[in-house]
Amino acid sequence: MQIIHTIQELRAWRKTAGRVAFVPTMGNLHEGHLALVHEAQKRADNVVVSIFVNRLQFGQGEDFGRYPRTLQQDADKLKDAGVAVVFAPDERELYPRVAQRYNVEPPHLQNELCGKFRPGHFRGVATVVSKLFNIVTPDVACFGKKDYQQLAVIKGMVEDLNFNIEIVPVDTGRAADGLALSSRNQYLSETERAEAPHLYRELQAVAEAIAQGNLAYADLERWATDNLAAAGWVVDYIEVRHAESLEVAHAGDKHLVVLAAARLGSTRLIDNIEVSLE
Amino acid sequence: MQIIHTIQELRAWRKTAGRVAFVPTMGNLHEGHLALVHEAQKRADNVVVSIFVNRLQFGQGEDFGRYPRTLQQDADKLKDAGVAVVFAPDERELYPRVAQRYNVEPPHLQNELCGKFRPGHFRGVATVVSKLFNIVTPDVACFGKKDYQQLAVIKGMVEDLNFNIEIVPVDTGRAADGLALSSRNQYLSETERAEAPHLYRELQAVAEAIAQGNLAYADLERWATDNLAAAGWVVDYIEVRHAESLEVAHAGDKHLVVLAAARLGSTRLIDNIEVSLE
Repeated sequence: MQIIHTIQELRAWRKTAGRVAFVPTMGNLHEGHLALVHEAQKRADNVVVSIFVNRLQFGQGEDFGRYPRTLQQDADKLKDAGVAVVFAPDERELYPRVAQRYNVEPPHLQNELCGKFRPGHFRGVATVVSKLFNIVTPDVACFGKKDYQQLAVIKGMVEDLNFNIEIVPVDTGRAADGLALSSRNQYLSETERAEAPHLYRELQAVAEAIAQGNLAYADLERWATDNLAAAGWVVDYIEVRHAESLEVAHAGDKHLVVLAAARLGSTRLIDNIEVSLE
Repeated sequence: MQIIHTIQELRAWRKTAGRVAFVPTMGNLHEGHLALVHEAQKRADNVVVSIFVNRLQFGQGEDFGRYPRTLQQDADKLKDAGVAVVFAPDERELYPRVAQRYNVEPPHLQNELCGKFRPGHFRGVATVVSKLFNIVTPDVACFGKKDYQQLAVIKGMVEDLNFNIEIVPVDTGRAADGLALSSRNQYLSETERAEAPHLYRELQAVAEAIAQGNLAYADLERWATDNLAAAGWVVDYIEVRHAESLEVAHAGDKHLVVLAAARLGSTRLIDNIEVSLE
């Protein structure tokens, strides 16, 4: 496995790499990332994993500074997993200027759900992913369903800007108690960690109610929100949305997703669950 | 020469096309475009010319509807010039949805100079060019210096979004009397056509004054504006700018460009001239 730090070296390697699958990450890898890698390996000759903590997608007061950076451990895991290349550029390699001037601007969806609480986040995601796509030029790229809105933004961007890249959604990895795997789980205290799977249980309850014919989405959302608040969570949102467009769900929509973001102490967790009514 | 209308066919052709140079156009080709083609031919195995009148870069009240569409004559010229592929997608091929959702957003430069008079124009240019770059995946692309601000936007976008494409600026083609070649020249009446080269003469006068040491840019701009206004022009702007950044020129800047946009009757013409003080 090669660890490549510069765009120039990555491009030189790419010329003879055949069919390439790409997994962009911010490092601090867990089993959820490795599931992305395994999906990627099924689809290409070589897998590139990027590790880059992208300042552009962090807001003021967010955890850019304390986001865990663990390149050596990450590289060991990816080597064991059979990855061909780790692309780990430094800040100046991806942002050689003081500010990024040209950005990929997503539509209004960027200001809803998580976007409402993280202004500029999805612009930062779309912009860095378009940069990485232009550097790696993969045939396929794998994204986790855990970041469901991010996945929707990337799929929309690929369609609208005509990237010739197949986007593969990968199911969320979970701990035995249901908690979605996330680098941010390590911020949780022991007590918080014990409470954390409650978020997924509420999503499951909403999804089951919908599957059993309860289409009073606003009531279900309020009910789950109240349950979490009673257990000490600060809920940013719990919403039932159309699974593809992420627009507000209407009666008659068959493919739905229930999405949530909520904070336990200073840690913000997100999760979601798809519901098909067919 | 092949005329290709779909993205799928273009991509199939691209796989075995070797090194490709790309010239994006809106059709209605003149000698200025053919100069771009000749520059492209020096740099690649195959040249692709796209012909697409891009609605996204026209403002309300602009000439999208009457912009001349002359595909057959254009194709004849490009065949004679030795072009490999004309890519002529229709509206639905590039914009299958009602609206483009994801856009490439240029920085503040998009609101200055021509952008001040054409809101959204450079966003539309950056977005369609990024789409075409992702479809054609050229090694090189040629852009005319006549659209100097457009060239600056494309160069900035390529840098910031890491497109692996060499941008080649090509000198402005001119009629014998100095008028910059443009598809819009055909809108001019006979009288207007006779007056039209006056724009370039004013730019030359400003450039010569600067070259001879007159650095009172605001005075020079006003002088040229007054001369054109006296001859019946409505001047959008005449400005001396830094040639690379297109920021307002300061004393000490060595690479300058004098840019102008002005209207004769209902026709808006643009032109520019570079000045080097070294």
